[in-house]
Amino acid sequence: MASFLLPDRCALSPMAEAVAARTLPPLRRAHSYGFQPPVAIPCRPLGLAAARSIASHSSTLSAVAPETTAKVIDGKLVSNQIKDEVTAEIARMKNAIGIVPGLAVILVGSRKDSQTYVRNKKKACEVVGINSYEVNLPEDITEEEVVKHIASFNDDSAVHGILVQLPLPRHMKEENILNAVNIGKDVDGFHPLNIGCLAMQGRDPLFVPCTPKGCMELLHRYDIEIKGKRAVVIGRSNIVGMPVALLLQKENATVSMVHSYTKNPEEVTSQADIVISAAGVANLVRGSWIKPGAVVIDVGINPVDDAETPRGYRLVGDVCYEEACKVASAITPVPGGVGPMTIAMLLSNTLGSAKRIHNFN
Amino acid sequence: MASFLLPDRCALSPMAEAVAARTLPPLRRAHSYGFQPPVAIPCRPLGLAAARSIASHSSTLSAVAPETTAKVIDGKLVSNQIKDEVTAEIARMKNAIGIVPGLAVILVGSRKDSQTYVRNKKKACEVVGINSYEVNLPEDITEEEVVKHIASFNDDSAVHGILVQLPLPRHMKEENILNAVNIGKDVDGFHPLNIGCLAMQGRDPLFVPCTPKGCMELLHRYDIEIKGKRAVVIGRSNIVGMPVALLLQKENATVSMVHSYTKNPEEVTSQADIVISAAGVANLVRGSWIKPGAVVIDVGINPVDDAETPRGYRLVGDVCYEEACKVASAITPVPGGVGPMTIAMLLSNTLGSAKRIHNFN
Repeated sequence: MASFLLPDRCALSPMAEAVAARTLPPLRRAHSYGFQPPVAIPCRPLGLAAARSIASHSSTLSAVAPETTAKVIDGKLVSNQIKDEVTAEIARMKNAIGIVPGLAVILVGSRKDSQTYVRNKKKACEVVGINSYEVNLPEDITEEEVVKHIASFNDDSAVHGILVQLPLPRHMKEENILNAVNIGKDVDGFHPLNIGCLAMQGRDPLFVPCTPKGCMELLHRYDIEIKGKRAVVIGRSNIVGMPVALLLQKENATVSMVHSYTKNPEEVTSQADIVISAAGVANLVRGSWIKPGAVVIDVGINPVDDAETPRGYRLVGDVCYEEACKVASAITPVPGGVGPMTIAMLLSNTLGSAKRIHNFN
Repeated sequence: MASFLLPDRCALSPMAEAVAARTLPPLRRAHSYGFQPPVAIPCRPLGLAAARSIASHSSTLSAVAPETTAKVIDGKLVSNQIKDEVTAEIARMKNAIGIVPGLAVILVGSRKDSQTYVRNKKKACEVVGINSYEVNLPEDITEEEVVKHIASFNDDSAVHGILVQLPLPRHMKEENILNAVNIGKDVDGFHPLNIGCLAMQGRDPLFVPCTPKGCMELLHRYDIEIKGKRAVVIGRSNIVGMPVALLLQKENATVSMVHSYTKNPEEVTSQADIVISAAGVANLVRGSWIKPGAVVIDVGINPVDDAETPRGYRLVGDVCYEEACKVASAITPVPGGVGPMTIAMLLSNTLGSAKRIHNFN
């Protein structure tokens, strides 16, 4: 698949193919099946549209579809709520102290996927009333030049959040670039000082990374209890798996991490009341991995071939939705689950930063 | 019990008494039993002396005592090996570049336990050839004054490691004091930037906290495989539980954390191939919690009343040694297990710091 299909900033640490090979039956390609949603097709996510169509037959969000039992956790809906809240807060701050939050995005090179994500972020900023600043730099620019641009945004009082679009060109060391971002404007929350504060009891990071924060927000807004629950996080990337495990632990879940060296991922996962999968492997998590009644948050956005779609592929999660939704009590669809939450959290972090910098409550 | 009995820097986040109350039979006080080691007495650790006496009947460290199966992991022995190695390296560095590592310890107030620990560290420095610098400050000194002393050590080229003895007087904010230590001299490894790098893949902290590093060193020196094993860490303090979980994960164990909100600590723990307990609750971990053949590292050093000892108390671990040693394949005794490793790792970190600062390999 073309690389531009990878999810925004979701360069997840790859759950080694070996794991998939050990634990998975061969991927069922869509073109092996006639796709007639919402008729059940093994390991084919219903997608949000189908789930909504099902939900529309019921009066509440917890609508139960034929052959499904799980409540659909609607990330699109929640992200829109959050954007509305952010919009209102930005208006209130502007009226009260005349400050408008600003987000600077630095894009190096001309990857199509990165350009798309940057464009989407810019649009989202416009919608909620955040000023966005964009710098596009050529692929062959030096690390030092990128750092200069970051330093300039660090000093710019109109900028409250700085985001360097990843991945960077190979000749750059990501660590050197990300460390240059002023920790007070690190709206991505990737600085090790932020991660350290996330890990430590009694400390709070200035920013929580956007996708993990989005997962927690979904759990909170759907009133899913975390304290005392067993949680399993699949995948341990710096940007999703590891920080979301730390967040679950901060809220007093009993957390286990499953990764490519885990010998019995199914057994470990099946003990969890809450499963958050951020492995980046299509259909890794089968129905048999899910404890009946568990809550499933699927961070994966994986392209699989589908000759029947106009683009020749469709996006599926890490979780075999069709199987899992019969076992879980609640589940996020892909797309329409965690995906829309990432940008919503970025907007929220940028607002939070402006509030902190200007001491506005 | 008097507070000076608490272990050095082991102000572990208390595993809530509720857990103990839920899961433990009443503590069996020593004075309820006639203590005749090595005769088996429920939940009474043999102690290193008894274990050694047993081991002396066999030709190897893996000696099997009557009624025990576990290899005794001898922290005293390993810590002495490490001290010998540090001594040799310090001599080599001094000969080669004329540099002697220096460790500065700041003690605020006059707690008897803290004075003892500082004295022990000073002695250990002398033994291996590290120059030690000590500042004793009155209990009622201000935070600013302590920070000034730290700043002075930060600037002192003869000092390669700075350690602020904890706990600090109540009027000080630990965070403000510890953050003042130059990260390049933070031999305790408690700075959030160090913890963040510990948590992140692809990053390495400048220093690994001493007790967690000591636990890992014991596993390494006893050739205990970590990769792919299930590990359970009991307790999630900033200074032991959380960092040791991150270290186990960095070495590709499948890690679960058990803490005061864990509903079924026995069930979770009994799935582990490696158990590291740092809860600070005497005899919390019973034999039934241990999977047959598991490796048990007991970080707890808990005083329990014992009228038959000259001091009226004895030290026991978190693990009911006498039960666990019949189930585990290897276990650390208390005392004589993890305890001696902490200072050994502090010396090793100070040497490592001097080598890095002077670019000596």
